[in-house]
Amino acid sequence: MSEAEEFMQVARAARDAATALAPLPRAPKDHALRAVADALVAAADEIVEANAGDVERAREAGTPAGMIDRLRLDRERVEKIASAVREVADLPDPVGEVVRGSTLPNGLELRQVRVPLGVVGIIYEGRPNVTVDAAVLCLKSGNAVLLRGSSSAYASNTALVRVMREALAGTEVPADAVRLVPGRDRDSVKHLLRARGLVDVLIPRGGAGLINSVVEESTVPVIETGVGNCHVYVDADADLDMALTILMNAKTQRPSVCNAAETLLVHAAVADEFLPRALAALAGAGVTVHGDERTRAYSADVVPAGEDDYTQEYVSLDIAAAVVDSLDEAVAHIRKYGSAHTDAIVTRSQPAARRFTATVDSAAVAVNASTRFTDGGEFGFGAEIGISTQKLHARGPMGLPELTSTKWIYTGDGHIRQ
Amino acid sequence: MSEAEEFMQVARAARDAATALAPLPRAPKDHALRAVADALVAAADEIVEANAGDVERAREAGTPAGMIDRLRLDRERVEKIASAVREVADLPDPVGEVVRGSTLPNGLELRQVRVPLGVVGIIYEGRPNVTVDAAVLCLKSGNAVLLRGSSSAYASNTALVRVMREALAGTEVPADAVRLVPGRDRDSVKHLLRARGLVDVLIPRGGAGLINSVVEESTVPVIETGVGNCHVYVDADADLDMALTILMNAKTQRPSVCNAAETLLVHAAVADEFLPRALAALAGAGVTVHGDERTRAYSADVVPAGEDDYTQEYVSLDIAAAVVDSLDEAVAHIRKYGSAHTDAIVTRSQPAARRFTATVDSAAVAVNASTRFTDGGEFGFGAEIGISTQKLHARGPMGLPELTSTKWIYTGDGHIRQ
Repeated sequence: MSEAEEFMQVARAARDAATALAPLPRAPKDHALRAVADALVAAADEIVEANAGDVERAREAGTPAGMIDRLRLDRERVEKIASAVREVADLPDPVGEVVRGSTLPNGLELRQVRVPLGVVGIIYEGRPNVTVDAAVLCLKSGNAVLLRGSSSAYASNTALVRVMREALAGTEVPADAVRLVPGRDRDSVKHLLRARGLVDVLIPRGGAGLINSVVEESTVPVIETGVGNCHVYVDADADLDMALTILMNAKTQRPSVCNAAETLLVHAAVADEFLPRALAALAGAGVTVHGDERTRAYSADVVPAGEDDYTQEYVSLDIAAAVVDSLDEAVAHIRKYGSAHTDAIVTRSQPAARRFTATVDSAAVAVNASTRFTDGGEFGFGAEIGISTQKLHARGPMGLPELTSTKWIYTGDGHIRQ
Repeated sequence: MSEAEEFMQVARAARDAATALAPLPRAPKDHALRAVADALVAAADEIVEANAGDVERAREAGTPAGMIDRLRLDRERVEKIASAVREVADLPDPVGEVVRGSTLPNGLELRQVRVPLGVVGIIYEGRPNVTVDAAVLCLKSGNAVLLRGSSSAYASNTALVRVMREALAGTEVPADAVRLVPGRDRDSVKHLLRARGLVDVLIPRGGAGLINSVVEESTVPVIETGVGNCHVYVDADADLDMALTILMNAKTQRPSVCNAAETLLVHAAVADEFLPRALAALAGAGVTVHGDERTRAYSADVVPAGEDDYTQEYVSLDIAAAVVDSLDEAVAHIRKYGSAHTDAIVTRSQPAARRFTATVDSAAVAVNASTRFTDGGEFGFGAEIGISTQKLHARGPMGLPELTSTKWIYTGDGHIRQ
């Protein structure tokens, strides 16, 4: 069987599983998730052993230590993954929620009900825990899932999926609701991108390169996630102590994530007072500042920024910086260079906060708060499948309801249209 | 200037207009819509004259009379278009609606607010009234719109857009919020399909060919609309008088629309009683029935149905028909051949209704009612931009809220993440 045929077989099996899974109520789905959690703990040794192979191959390939640490699973991490599965089981089921409803003037009873999307494809890089997280969020929301992880985690992902499927086999949730996309080369991704009609949505999770290539090539609807070039704008009316605290939190509390700050914009009216303190604090935390000419005037440590510095997501201890002459100039900068993820203003001015929140066109806008709060867990969603930076379907952190569609149901007693 | 450059100029102007339009509250938007309505009435002669050219060219090209009638504008039709604009002005503004909100345990105030999508591209065939309908729905929801109508209506659309833009010039809504895509050949559509980053969503309105080609080629997110292969399933427990009334309404009340029935499925238990009556009534209404072998046993007038008959949207006085042995077989048929638009069951059985609505995976499912009710106007939306048959973002009739996205806004007093 060719890889393409093998893919079609897997995708059709997932589609049939989705059909069987969609009408299942909450109880059997939660039961299946708890069975998955138990099975992961029970199979921890086997999973860790498969993972050790991936880690060994990554080390031989000269993968940096930080990435190897992200790849590595031990018993404790497997147990943590299992706990996360139990937390998802405890979340409310979005399926069946009546979103809107009314009785029409002619007596027709109309309601709009949440239903699963169907088959969700997840294309992701890096950590193998995503394999389980993504699968159980899809199952909980009544969807089948096709997983396409990083080839560097192939053995780990294969083991995790095998354990999950074995656990499902004893439940009402069909095992085929969780499938790994066959193959590990680039072509195997392509099958997924062209599976319109079999796959209802693709969610790429990873860097800008991955996401752009998926958007370019896919005929399946895509939800873009995760690229975050987040800004902190320090307004003329900012409380500068607060601005410094927020800036340092947004940049340094966890620089590798998408809601970390990547650009600092400072109003010229407070640049003299704020920038020397901010640049010293950033330098003290090991952050390299890439600044425009006006920023560089405050410190010889600031390296010159090019256009690229304002566009990119560093995901590292680097930050771009610029001085602006007005709030509108800050907003224009954010619109031009940002990724519409999360942008923050620090200000005591109510009109400034109102104008900033009204004119910054991003998934999240923060006022006097760190950009780091844009997160499904922080928002109280319980779990998230990713952070959408597109405008269609879902924007910002995506929880379980964002993994659903809706269906209109109307009931009459022989109603016809006049 | 090349057509590609001209397109980029138009799209950038629309993008800037969208930025200016997004924060506008309801009053100036409604004022602008009423100015558009007045201007259309005032310019009716000019519009009708431009349209006469399109009609003349269509006639010379041998276009069928029905299509020419759809293309034709007279003063009365222009006045009707203007009234529809005033009705949209009277609808509530979806922008600014707080969809969800809470105060997080740390005191952060969180709210999710409806915002415009940005720039909406509409690709449509046929009637020039869509030019105005689509434009004003986009404006009302705070979006700029790029219109790409049928080349057969190019002169009409050009006149309508000119009149709308002139009317907007005297209002707070920028005239560039309404633009016609330059050019009338196929390449001019391509620019729109590749305008990712400048255009936020594309809504193709037309036949399956148009919609498929847009989905295949677009890097801009697409909302699929309008293809409807709707089924009427007559259950073993159906009230057969009701079934006949619903069938005839769904098929013949307006056969050219997407929510008209295209396939009849009859449970074998009632086929003997129902099909002779139904086939006679359909024949009496001039409907050609394309049936399976079991259906053909009831009338010599039934022509043999192939796979294509079950798949296609006739949009004419034709209907496919088949006898099924169970409700589940009916559902399987609908899943296999349907377009997931609207499917109806006629039954007195509550369990049958429950199973049908739970397992048919379509935008709308009707119980004891005609498929013809799947319509933004009937649902009480006031107006619709189309009927989505996809699962992402919007499903079923799309009103003004479906032309929006959301933005998360969170406000703290120096909140940082621990």
